[in-house]
Amino acid sequence: MRIAVLGVGLIGGSIGLAARERIDGAEVVGYDARESALAAARERGAIDRAAGSVGEALEGADACFACAPVGALPALVADALAAAGGDCVVSDVGSVKGVVADATSDPRFIGGHPLAGAESAGVEHARADLFDAASWYLTPGERSSGILYERLHGIVVGLGAQPVAIDAATHDRLLATVSHLPHVLANVLVSQAARALAGEGEALPRVGPSFRDATRVAGANPDIWTDIYLANGEAIAAQLDEAADRLHAVAELLRARDAGAIETWNEAARADRRRLLEADLAGGPVHELRISVPNRPGIVASVALSLGKAGVNIVDMALSPAPDMRSGQMALWIAGDDAAARAEELIGELGFPVTRAS
Amino acid sequence: MRIAVLGVGLIGGSIGLAARERIDGAEVVGYDARESALAAARERGAIDRAAGSVGEALEGADACFACAPVGALPALVADALAAAGGDCVVSDVGSVKGVVADATSDPRFIGGHPLAGAESAGVEHARADLFDAASWYLTPGERSSGILYERLHGIVVGLGAQPVAIDAATHDRLLATVSHLPHVLANVLVSQAARALAGEGEALPRVGPSFRDATRVAGANPDIWTDIYLANGEAIAAQLDEAADRLHAVAELLRARDAGAIETWNEAARADRRRLLEADLAGGPVHELRISVPNRPGIVASVALSLGKAGVNIVDMALSPAPDMRSGQMALWIAGDDAAARAEELIGELGFPVTRAS
Repeated sequence: MRIAVLGVGLIGGSIGLAARERIDGAEVVGYDARESALAAARERGAIDRAAGSVGEALEGADACFACAPVGALPALVADALAAAGGDCVVSDVGSVKGVVADATSDPRFIGGHPLAGAESAGVEHARADLFDAASWYLTPGERSSGILYERLHGIVVGLGAQPVAIDAATHDRLLATVSHLPHVLANVLVSQAARALAGEGEALPRVGPSFRDATRVAGANPDIWTDIYLANGEAIAAQLDEAADRLHAVAELLRARDAGAIETWNEAARADRRRLLEADLAGGPVHELRISVPNRPGIVASVALSLGKAGVNIVDMALSPAPDMRSGQMALWIAGDDAAARAEELIGELGFPVTRAS
Repeated sequence: MRIAVLGVGLIGGSIGLAARERIDGAEVVGYDARESALAAARERGAIDRAAGSVGEALEGADACFACAPVGALPALVADALAAAGGDCVVSDVGSVKGVVADATSDPRFIGGHPLAGAESAGVEHARADLFDAASWYLTPGERSSGILYERLHGIVVGLGAQPVAIDAATHDRLLATVSHLPHVLANVLVSQAARALAGEGEALPRVGPSFRDATRVAGANPDIWTDIYLANGEAIAAQLDEAADRLHAVAELLRARDAGAIETWNEAARADRRRLLEADLAGGPVHELRISVPNRPGIVASVALSLGKAGVNIVDMALSPAPDMRSGQMALWIAGDDAAARAEELIGELGFPVTRAS
C-alpha cells in the first residue's frame, strides 16, 4: 500500500514513521513545500522517498493524508483530489473539520483529526507512537465511499489510534468547547490581568499556580491558531457568548451575596470536573494527592521513581514552587483507588506530608 | 516576644514553626476551636503551649495572627482586639482584606495576607520555610500605629517573607484579577463543557493539556472559597463583567473573520503572559522548552536529575501524557538565557527531542 503524506511536520512525519514501522508493505511518499522539512523527514526515516510535487506524491497512492494548517487545507485537499486516482482515499488532519468538508463533496474525501501532538511543531518531534491509543476523529460526508472509509479506518488503526466517527459540525462544536474556548479564556485572562496590574502600578503578585495554569496556553502558536479561530469562528463565538453569559450570572450571584447559591455553584464545578476527567482517563476514579516537598533537585525525581517502581503511573502532575524555589506543593493525579492508596503510602515513606484532596 | 496564633492550620502552624525556629526568644501560644488541631500543632512543635480560649492566648502577647477562613475573621479579630493589651499588634492572614479592614479602625490592627500555601489545608502541611521569599501583603489603615507596623514588619521578615504594604482595596482588586477570576473561569469552563458534552452525547475528547490546565482549580476547596467569593464579591463581579465584555469582543472579531486582528490579539496575549511571568519570576527571561519523551517511569526523574545536577532549576513544568500514557510532551520553563541553553543541551544529551518555544 502506498501512502502519500502532504506536509511532513510533526503529524505528517509521525504518520510516516508509524506507517513504515507498523503497516505491512506500506510505502510512504512525502511531499512538502519546504525542502528542508522534506530532507529532515527523509533523514528521520519518516518517508521512503520524497516527491517533487503533490501530483508526483499521489502517483499510484492508495491513501493520502493532507497535513497542513487548517487554512491551507481546502486548497491542498483539492489539489490532492485532482491528482489522486479513482481508488485513492484522501484525508486530512486539521483540527477544524467543517471548513474542509464544506469545500468538497468528492466521495474519495473523508476528513480526519488525530487528537495528538498539537503542542510542538516539526518533524524532529515526530514519533512512531505519537497516536498510540489516541482518538482519531473521522468525519465522513454523506457521499463518502464506504470502501474507502473502511480502508482509512484500517490505516488509522494500523497507526495505533482509535478511530471515532463523528459528523463535521458536531466535531467542530465539541472542539470549540473543550479546546478552543480554553485558549480564548487564557488569552482574555492574561490580557485583562496585564492591563489591571499596569493600571494599579503593581507587578504580578507571587500567587499560587492558578494563574499560571490558567494562562499556560495563552498566545498559543499563532501559525496554527489564527487558522483555527478563523475556520471555527462561528462555533467558538457561540461558546464565548455562552461563557460571557455564565460570567454575568456568577457576577449577579456574587452581588446578591447568596452564600448557598455560591457554594452550590462551586460544588457543581467540582463534580463536573471530576466526572469529565474520570470519563477521559478511565482506569478508575481519579484521586488528587497534595504533597509538600522541598524544591531541591532530585525530589520530583525521587517521587516519580518511587511510584514508577511500584507500577503507579502519574496521570497528571502540577508543581507549585514557592517563590524562593526552595519548597513547594506537588499535586499528583492518580487513577484507581488502589494505585492512589499505594502512592499515598510510598510518598509517606519518603517522608513528605501528603493528603488526599477530597 | 510572645506571639499568639489563633487557628493552627497550615498557615497558623507554619507561622508557629517559623517563629519558634527563627525568631530569637519567640514564644508561640496557640488557640484553635478544634482541639485535635491544637494537639497536632503541639505535637509538630508549631506552638510552645496551647491556650483554652482567645483571651488566654492573648495574655501578655506582643503580636497576634488570626488565621481563619475569611468569613470568620471579622469576629475573630474583634475578639482578639478585645483581649489584647494596648501594646499588642493584631493581624490576620485572610486572602481578602477589605472585609476585615472595614470592621475595625483600631490602631492596633494591621491586616495581612501571606501569598503562600493556599492549596493544602492542615497543620500536617505546615513548614517553617513556607513563607521563604513569599510576598506578605500588609494593609495598614489610616489609624494603624506606626510602632506596631514596624513590629509586625519585623516579625514577617523574621518568618522569612517579604512584607509589601498595599491598601486593602487595591489588594482586593489585584487578587480579584490574578487569583479569584481564574478560579471563576475554571468553574465556568468546566460546567459549560460538561453541559455541552452531555448535550452532544459525547465524552470528553482526549484533547491536550489545555483543558486540564485551565480547569485544574475548578471547584476549589469550598470551605475557603465560598468565603472569598462573598468577601470580595464586588471586586470579583467587576472582573467578571470585564471578562464577559472581552469575550463578546473576541466573538465579534471571530464573526468578522478579521485574520489580522485575530493574530494581533493572540500575539498580544502571548507577549502579556511572557511579561507577567518574567516580572513574577525574575532571574531573567523565561524560556519554554518542549520535549518529547516516552512516559516510562523514571523519565521525568532523569530529566529533573540531569538539570538539577547542573544547577538548572525548573521554574514550572507541565506534563501532557498521550492517552496511552506511554509517551508525551514535557514543557519546562527555565529562567535565564544561560540556564535555558544548558537545559537544552542536557536534554539533547539524554536523547530526547527538544525545541524552544518561540
